[in-house]
Amino acid sequence: MTCPPGASERLFAAMRHAVLAPAKRLRPILAITAYRSLGGSERRIYPVAAAIEMLHTYSLIHDDLPCMDNDDFRRGQPSAHRKYGEATAVLTGDALLTLGFQVIGTIPERRKGADAATILEAVRILAAAAGTGGLITGQSLDLSGSARTGNLDDVGRIHRNKTARLIAAAMDTGALVGGAGMETRRRIRDAGTLAGEAFQIIDDVLDRETGRETLGKTPGKDALNDKLTFPALAGTEKARETAAKMVTEAKSMLPEGATTGLLRAMFDFLITRAS
Amino acid sequence: MTCPPGASERLFAAMRHAVLAPAKRLRPILAITAYRSLGGSERRIYPVAAAIEMLHTYSLIHDDLPCMDNDDFRRGQPSAHRKYGEATAVLTGDALLTLGFQVIGTIPERRKGADAATILEAVRILAAAAGTGGLITGQSLDLSGSARTGNLDDVGRIHRNKTARLIAAAMDTGALVGGAGMETRRRIRDAGTLAGEAFQIIDDVLDRETGRETLGKTPGKDALNDKLTFPALAGTEKARETAAKMVTEAKSMLPEGATTGLLRAMFDFLITRAS
Repeated sequence: MTCPPGASERLFAAMRHAVLAPAKRLRPILAITAYRSLGGSERRIYPVAAAIEMLHTYSLIHDDLPCMDNDDFRRGQPSAHRKYGEATAVLTGDALLTLGFQVIGTIPERRKGADAATILEAVRILAAAAGTGGLITGQSLDLSGSARTGNLDDVGRIHRNKTARLIAAAMDTGALVGGAGMETRRRIRDAGTLAGEAFQIIDDVLDRETGRETLGKTPGKDALNDKLTFPALAGTEKARETAAKMVTEAKSMLPEGATTGLLRAMFDFLITRAS
Repeated sequence: MTCPPGASERLFAAMRHAVLAPAKRLRPILAITAYRSLGGSERRIYPVAAAIEMLHTYSLIHDDLPCMDNDDFRRGQPSAHRKYGEATAVLTGDALLTLGFQVIGTIPERRKGADAATILEAVRILAAAAGTGGLITGQSLDLSGSARTGNLDDVGRIHRNKTARLIAAAMDTGALVGGAGMETRRRIRDAGTLAGEAFQIIDDVLDRETGRETLGKTPGKDALNDKLTFPALAGTEKARETAAKMVTEAKSMLPEGATTGLLRAMFDFLITRAS
């Protein structure tokens, strides 16, 4: 991500700051793992995986903005707007979102005939999951009253949009590029949705239980903002129990066979992680 | 753009407010005109044209934000953040940018084989022009000191990024989907770049000379923000003269033949318009 001549050094520094910060890289790894589980063995999933991490990072930058969740720390460092100012943070998010699609759109000439329809489908899936079919609707509902006055159903709906859709889309595009058929992809997607919901429940548990140094972002924000979360409504013990059940069910949805062993292990990690 | 069940009504209202407001639709019309000029006669350019208008509208919403140009009026009505608040305005821009790529990515099944590589190339071109290869770099440079301390070269560089690249990309994708070859596309793109620069010069002239009612946005903002523009540096007469010369040159770059008559007429409109 080198700044081309004539472009803004500051913008590229902020893009690198955000996207190259230490992070779990969960979504791209799930995409690559799903791809390999379905028999893919080439590097053609990498641009898609890179794009997914850019899309995810853009959403973190914009969610952290003062007019949104107003969070000063992310990935163990000052959030983009804290370090580079609000205007550059907005543009940095915009730039990473856009670059994601540019990276997916840039496939080598020799592959065009065979892969273009598949990659274009990946564009559609990821745009839907990042946009009003997922992330943006989730954040919009989260900002609205329903995150404060709702019940567990409302919380579930917000989390499916905010978190689970992109995780499911990452696994779906991995399976798609790996050559999986519609039925296999449906199973992968459903498993990803459930695992994504479990991931979010544990995220909210960690928000209550973990210090900033381990978490890499400001803990206790949900309680501070009076936001409903699963552990807030049902307690952390019940939350961990529910997440574990979800992951067990998600694992049972995956296609049979040893090739999904790594996906299963990753699902377990989603709920056993410490940050 | 109907709000699906479970999504945020407020977000969709804001998206409609911004993208369906009365506007010239210059960029999509240029895409469609370039497509038709090159022999295209079907409706397959329409999703690309719609996406281009969404990308353009997103950039207006984010540019108008308080942390950016802080503009209260756009397209003859309150800007998105004035009407829906800052958080929703950020999300509305994000949503339109993302929806643009989703719309391009959604091509009918029966066309997939033939068109996917072409449409994927359009994704790449538009992402580059909307992103760090254009709009975002332009806005970033515009916000930085170079828009205040620079000379005509700096102004030209900002305007090429901020305005001309997306106009050129609109024409380029029109030509691409219309089946044009590389050399024809290069001419169309170069002509579009020059016409786009002329468009921006006239925009800056109108900003100094026209009232808000005609303009549909707050006039005099550039002078207020102490921003360098072509007319500020060289005077409005010289600016109009330069824009006219650029359009004459742009027209001469277009491929020969009567089929580009409408494109030529549109280039003339770019510099004779009153708003």
